[in-house]
Amino acid sequence: MILEIERKFLVSGDAWRSQVSGARRIRQAYLANGGTTSVRVRVIDGSSAKLTVKGAARADGPALSRPEFEYAIPVADALAMMEMRNGRIVEKTRYLVPAGAGRTWEVDVFTGALEGLVLAEIELERPDEEVALPDWLGREVTGDPRYGNMALALEA
Amino acid sequence: MILEIERKFLVSGDAWRSQVSGARRIRQAYLANGGTTSVRVRVIDGSSAKLTVKGAARADGPALSRPEFEYAIPVADALAMMEMRNGRIVEKTRYLVPAGAGRTWEVDVFTGALEGLVLAEIELERPDEEVALPDWLGREVTGDPRYGNMALALEA
Repeated sequence: MILEIERKFLVSGDAWRSQVSGARRIRQAYLANGGTTSVRVRVIDGSSAKLTVKGAARADGPALSRPEFEYAIPVADALAMMEMRNGRIVEKTRYLVPAGAGRTWEVDVFTGALEGLVLAEIELERPDEEVALPDWLGREVTGDPRYGNMALALEA
Repeated sequence: MILEIERKFLVSGDAWRSQVSGARRIRQAYLANGGTTSVRVRVIDGSSAKLTVKGAARADGPALSRPEFEYAIPVADALAMMEMRNGRIVEKTRYLVPAGAGRTWEVDVFTGALEGLVLAEIELERPDEEVALPDWLGREVTGDPRYGNMALALEA
């Protein structure tokens, strides 16, 4: 188990693209949700897969904290489990942008049903960690239920 | 992924006890359920643990078939995930009783909130496989939603 601590922002413009250090294609879906618990299956670059259980999120200073349990699983299992999903398969390209101090902005450019949405997340070690906010960030949406990964998978 | 094919019965009396070839203590809970999909965490003999995703059950001849994905996980993860459960922790001792032809009756003697309930399950390779039914079996409850593992965890 790890405790995931993160902040999330809308992204405005393309200035981040010149700083990209890596990218991967992500397809993910939610298998089930038990109120505050979610179970997600994710395929990365079509070649690896993970099963992730997340517990209840809670506001923790400016960030959101959430227990997270993640296991590598066979891609074939992930693809079969996606057929058992709730809601849609979410597709995005995740671009990695160095954030300084060893941290990374993950800029998610959604495709398919969520085309046009671009979100940036940063994972922190401590909820109160200072973060330099680049100009290309838009409004902060940490804790906004509309931008939660599960909401994006379930909303019409 | 495996396809789990099983039949389930109530158990009457103790005649099976003289044939027990093994036993293990099981504690399990459900993390989430997405309609037909369930996610279960199980600790066996306090020393190993599994995370199991099951898809929709469907009647298949006299048996019930269901896609199942199971992964070994650290016991510490399982115990932490149990805190995120829906419903209760189900506790039982599972006794193994040889069924012939390489198969095994799993006789589950529940304790705690379900004290008094005893169920026997057999896993089959084919839905139409012939099964010799020992005298100590009571009524068949294959497919009876009241005796599903998730129902037993969720019902008051």
